Formats: sequence, structure tokens, C-alpha cells
Amino acid sequence: MGGDHAPESVLHGAAEALTRHAGLHFHLFGDEARIAPVLEALPALKDASTLHHTARVIASDEQPSVALRKGKDSSMRLAIDCVHAGKAAAVVSAGNTGALMAMAKIVFRTLPGIDRPAIASFFPTEDGKCVFLDMGANIECDAKHLFQFAIMGDAFARAVLGLEDPRIGLLNVGEEDMKGHEAVKEAAAMLRNPDLSLNFHGFVEGDDIAAGTVDVVVTDGFTGNIVIKTAEGVARMLAHKAKGALKHSLLAKLGLLLALPAIRRIKDHLNPSRYNGAMFLGLNGIAVKSHGGADAEGFANAIGVAVEIAMHGLNRKIIEELQSTNGSIMANGNGSNSISPTDPDTSGMALA
Amino acid sequence: MGGDHAPESVLHGAAEALTRHAGLHFHLFGDEARIAPVLEALPALKDASTLHHTARVIASDEQPSVALRKGKDSSMRLAIDCVHAGKAAAVVSAGNTGALMAMAKIVFRTLPGIDRPAIASFFPTEDGKCVFLDMGANIECDAKHLFQFAIMGDAFARAVLGLEDPRIGLLNVGEEDMKGHEAVKEAAAMLRNPDLSLNFHGFVEGDDIAAGTVDVVVTDGFTGNIVIKTAEGVARMLAHKAKGALKHSLLAKLGLLLALPAIRRIKDHLNPSRYNGAMFLGLNGIAVKSHGGADAEGFANAIGVAVEIAMHGLNRKIIEELQSTNGSIMANGNGSNSISPTDPDTSGMALA
Repeated sequence: MGGDHAPESVLHGAAEALTRHAGLHFHLFGDEARIAPVLEALPALKDASTLHHTARVIASDEQPSVALRKGKDSSMRLAIDCVHAGKAAAVVSAGNTGALMAMAKIVFRTLPGIDRPAIASFFPTEDGKCVFLDMGANIECDAKHLFQFAIMGDAFARAVLGLEDPRIGLLNVGEEDMKGHEAVKEAAAMLRNPDLSLNFHGFVEGDDIAAGTVDVVVTDGFTGNIVIKTAEGVARMLAHKAKGALKHSLLAKLGLLLALPAIRRIKDHLNPSRYNGAMFLGLNGIAVKSHGGADAEGFANAIGVAVEIAMHGLNRKIIEELQSTNGSIMANGNGSNSISPTDPDTSGMALA
Repeated sequence: MGGDHAPESVLHGAAEALTRHAGLHFHLFGDEARIAPVLEALPALKDASTLHHTARVIASDEQPSVALRKGKDSSMRLAIDCVHAGKAAAVVSAGNTGALMAMAKIVFRTLPGIDRPAIASFFPTEDGKCVFLDMGANIECDAKHLFQFAIMGDAFARAVLGLEDPRIGLLNVGEEDMKGHEAVKEAAAMLRNPDLSLNFHGFVEGDDIAAGTVDVVVTDGFTGNIVIKTAEGVARMLAHKAKGALKHSLLAKLGLLLALPAIRRIKDHLNPSRYNGAMFLGLNGIAVKSHGGADAEGFANAIGVAVEIAMHGLNRKIIEELQSTNGSIMANGNGSNSISPTDPDTSGMALA
């Protein structure tokens, strides 16, 4: 029920995901009166789905605290509960990010050794994409949080991008050791620990993100949120400028026509729906947030990210990496925590 | 002597600035053996310049603290001293930013009511440009600093852009009042004071910068530095992608050729040299930092910014705006400070 084009884009996205990943089963949570008619036109999806009716929807502007208290019968909460009960491998939603994070945190809880979950996403680079976190879950971060984000980003890049030794960079205002505030300097010192199996590149600057200098860029949620949105804004402004300038003259229009296939390739590389799917890392359960404005293809990509995470046992990797560093780095005793990552049937997806 | 192409780009830039602003006089500080031969080829500039020889140059990687202690006879320091002595209206340098700020702060001191100077620059937007600060002079900022940056940005937009009622935005992770960390929330509360003559728009997000939602975007130097560099990186990546894709096929190449005038217009709008000139705001003296990689045109633009600031009495405007808010907002007693802004002959420029 979440996002600008629900339930249509969610359902058409699920149908598309089904053609890409055979054997998926969907638990659909929401208003039956609106979902059932769309499902009728998607027989393959209908066969692969269980529809759970609820009239309660978390509004896009609802306060996370209100959603927590009063949203226990909401489509979002029921989808999270479904994953927590082991009936689905992951929850995918295009709804209210803050509410999704708050509920997922309460229901799933954080992984042992992780103080705060983070939101990670892909950022397009010169020759591919990098993992970028935190996108905004944690406005204020200390060194330990940044350190844990690096561990999570590393495990994510290994598990989902299949990189053997991902390069990790800490976002800062310069590359030299003395640059930045205390939290980034301390986090860098922690990440330079030779006992870590992490490939820590050191500090990176803003222009290193799109340059692809590293595979994982780590920052606090305040900077991260602003960076992602600045990049979106710049790309949009340039596209408008290019469009405006090219439509200015007949010759340019003709040129545009000839260059169209090339332009489509650029657009494809930058298409936000290609990078859709913000991953909630550090929770004992898988939650993926689709962009609220995503179309069916974008939502299918978000489901694809959830499938990748589930198949590659990301959370086990995070726990192992944290436990291996526990002796030398972590002092909060969480290493002995008995929570183990949920590892349900990876074919089930809960869509809210 | 500063920047990647000194002294050539500095001198050719000064010669170009002279054609744009008749009546300028330059004080040139640096190595006579390297400057004099270039001047020979620029007779108009030679006539309008006084050359002050010094062999000492601040290196681009020199620590600001070292530059302060050991750089008293450097070209940069002598140029600043020249402004402080009232012999020039502004100093323009393409050299080491940290050293330039440290020296300018020590020699000029801050304006009454200003705790910390900030670095402002222009950011290209959908329909023009906005003023963006702080670009990195202040890594950690509290609410009072952000408030002062807003006052300085407002005065700058009025003085240099000629805007009557510039819209001021505070960069944050959302537009709602409860978003962000304490410093931005407190600064917003201070800026909402109805006694202020400021047109405070409220919080803006990353994508609002390039969209041109406001005329002045205020943020701390950590976020600001990363935002500016992220934007540069994204623009560079997109340009590379476009170039690569367009060269992919013969048809696209032909299309490119036809669209060339249109593409030149986009490039012109985004040309970094068009936005060259980072302004040090809040000092009792005018200092403009040119990008180290600027060409002659870029350096001429940086001189142009210094001329604008000097002609419009920016520092008087900042002091007046702060004094008018003194009763209701400022509690640090600096309003009675007896320092008055230097107001020398605006035709003199010191180039280091």
C-alpha cells in the first residue's frame, strides 16, 4: 500500500520479479478491495501470492512513534511480523521510511554487536556502482557507529556485489589523517586496526563517491541523506539543462534524434529505478525500502535486492565479521549475545 | 604564486580582469624572476601593476599553523598585509585555502558579532545560481555559527547578487520542524525570529540546492565541503558518461556535431570557472580564493567577485544586519565592538 502508485506498481513489480526469480512466493498485505482487481489481471502473480487483508495503512507523513503505537494492524507492521514469524525471508515496502525502520527495529531487533541499524543504497559511479551508507537512519553518529557501518557495508558488498575484498572509504573533508571531526578520526583509527580483515582505503572526499574510488562509502546519516539528495538534484538539473539546450535549435533536435540510442544508454546507467532498493542493515531480519516514486520495474529491482540479501546470508556474514573483531575492537560484550539471524525460506517475500 | 598554473594564469587573469573593470590597480606579490617575463608580454597589466618581490611561497600542502608562524614574508601574507594597510581593497589568491584563511583571520580579524568566518561560493541552479556556505572553513558548527552564516549569506546575496529579499534556506535531512540535529533546529528557531529582516524559507534538502528553491543555502563546513565535492563528482561522472556514450556510434557522433552549439551552452552554464571565487565572509577585510586549477578566465572571474564585494560594501551590510538583530538575538556583546570595516580605495587588488 506504500508509495505513490500503490498498489499497482507494487503488484506489477512483484509480477516482474516473479519472471526474474522463479519460485518466489509473495505475502501481500493491504486493502483487498484495491489489490484483488489488480491481481485478477496478473494470474501468475495471483497463483504465487497469499493476500492478507487489512484496511489500516501507514500514511507517508505519519510519525514513526505514532505508527509504532497505533499501527499494529497496518499492512506494513503485518508484513514485518510475517518475516519475524519466519513465514517470509524479507519485507519490501515503498511506504514511510521512518515508520518502516522504527517497526523493523522493534520487531526484528538489531544484530548482536550492532548498536544502530543503517540504511544503505547504491550510488552510480564511473564504472559501476558503490554501496553508500548511512542514508539517513542515524542523524548523529559517534566513531563506534561509523565503525559498525563500515563492517556492515563490507559484508553487504561481499555478499550482494560478490566482491572479494571491497575497498572501504570513510567520507571526510580531506584525505589527510588530521582532517575532519573527532568521530571520523576515531572511526578511521578503529578501521586501521591490522587485526581487521577489512580493506580500509582511508578517508575519501565527496568527489570520490561518483569517481568510484572505493566500493563502500561510509558516513553519518545527516551527511549521507544530504549527499544522496544533492546528487539527485544535480543530475536532475543537468538533465533539464541538457534537454532545454538540445531543444533550442532544429539542428540540435536532429542531433538529439541521431544520438538517441547513446542517450538511452546514459539514462539507463543513471535510471534511479536501476538503483532502487534501500537496504536496512544491522537488523535481525531483512527489510528493503523501495523509493516511494518507483514504477513497477523499480519495485521489481527492490525485490531483487531483497532476494540477493536473503540468498547470500548477509546477516550471518555481518555477525561473523563482528565476532572476529570482537576480541580486539568491540568492548560492549554483545558478541556473546544469543540472538541468531533469522534464516527462513528465502523464497517468501512480504509486500506491504 | 598560488594554484596549478601560477604565475601565468594569475597574470593573464589579471589582464583579462583589467579589460572588464577599467581603472583597477594590481599589487603583485611573488617571485620577480618568474613574474617579470610574463608581465613583459602584457603591457597594459604592467602599467596597472606594482610588483613586490618575495621568494617565499606558501606550498599547497603547507600546514596553516606553519604558514602562520613561518610565512610572514610569503607572497600570500604580504598581499593580505597590503589589504590590511589600506593599500588594496581585496586579496585574491589561488593558493593554499587553509593558509589563506588562517592568515586572513589573524591579520583582518573577524567582524564585530561574527565568531567565525565562513567560505561561500556559488552553486549553479536550474535558473541561475545560489550562494552556498560554509564550504569547509568550520568543520563543527553550533546554532549560533549557522545563524551568523545565514546573516552573512543574506548580506552577500543582497550586495553582490543585487537581490532585494533573498530566500535563506538551512540545509537539513527534511523540511519538518522536528528533523535534524540540535544545532540546525536551534538555528532555525533563531532565524524564525520575527524581529529579523531576513526572508527565512526554513529547512531545505539536498535536492533543493540545484533546484534553486532558495537564494542562499546555509550549512556547516563538514557537510558543505562534502556537498560541493559530491556535486562536482556527479557532474564530472555524467559528463564522462555522456561523452563515452555519444562517441559510441557514428550516428551519435554526427548527432553530437549538430548539437554542439547547444552543448556549448550547457557547458558554459556549468563551467566551474564561471563560478570561480570562494568568498571569505565575516572578516574585516576582503579575501577571495580562486580554485587552484583555474585558468586565466577563472582567475579573472575571482577578481570580478572581489571587485563586486569591494564596491558593494558587503562588510558594512553584514555589520548593520547583525547590529539590527543585536537587541533581540545576539548576547555576546560584540555589537559594541569598535572595529569598523576597512573601506579602502576599491580599485586596488593584491594578488598573491
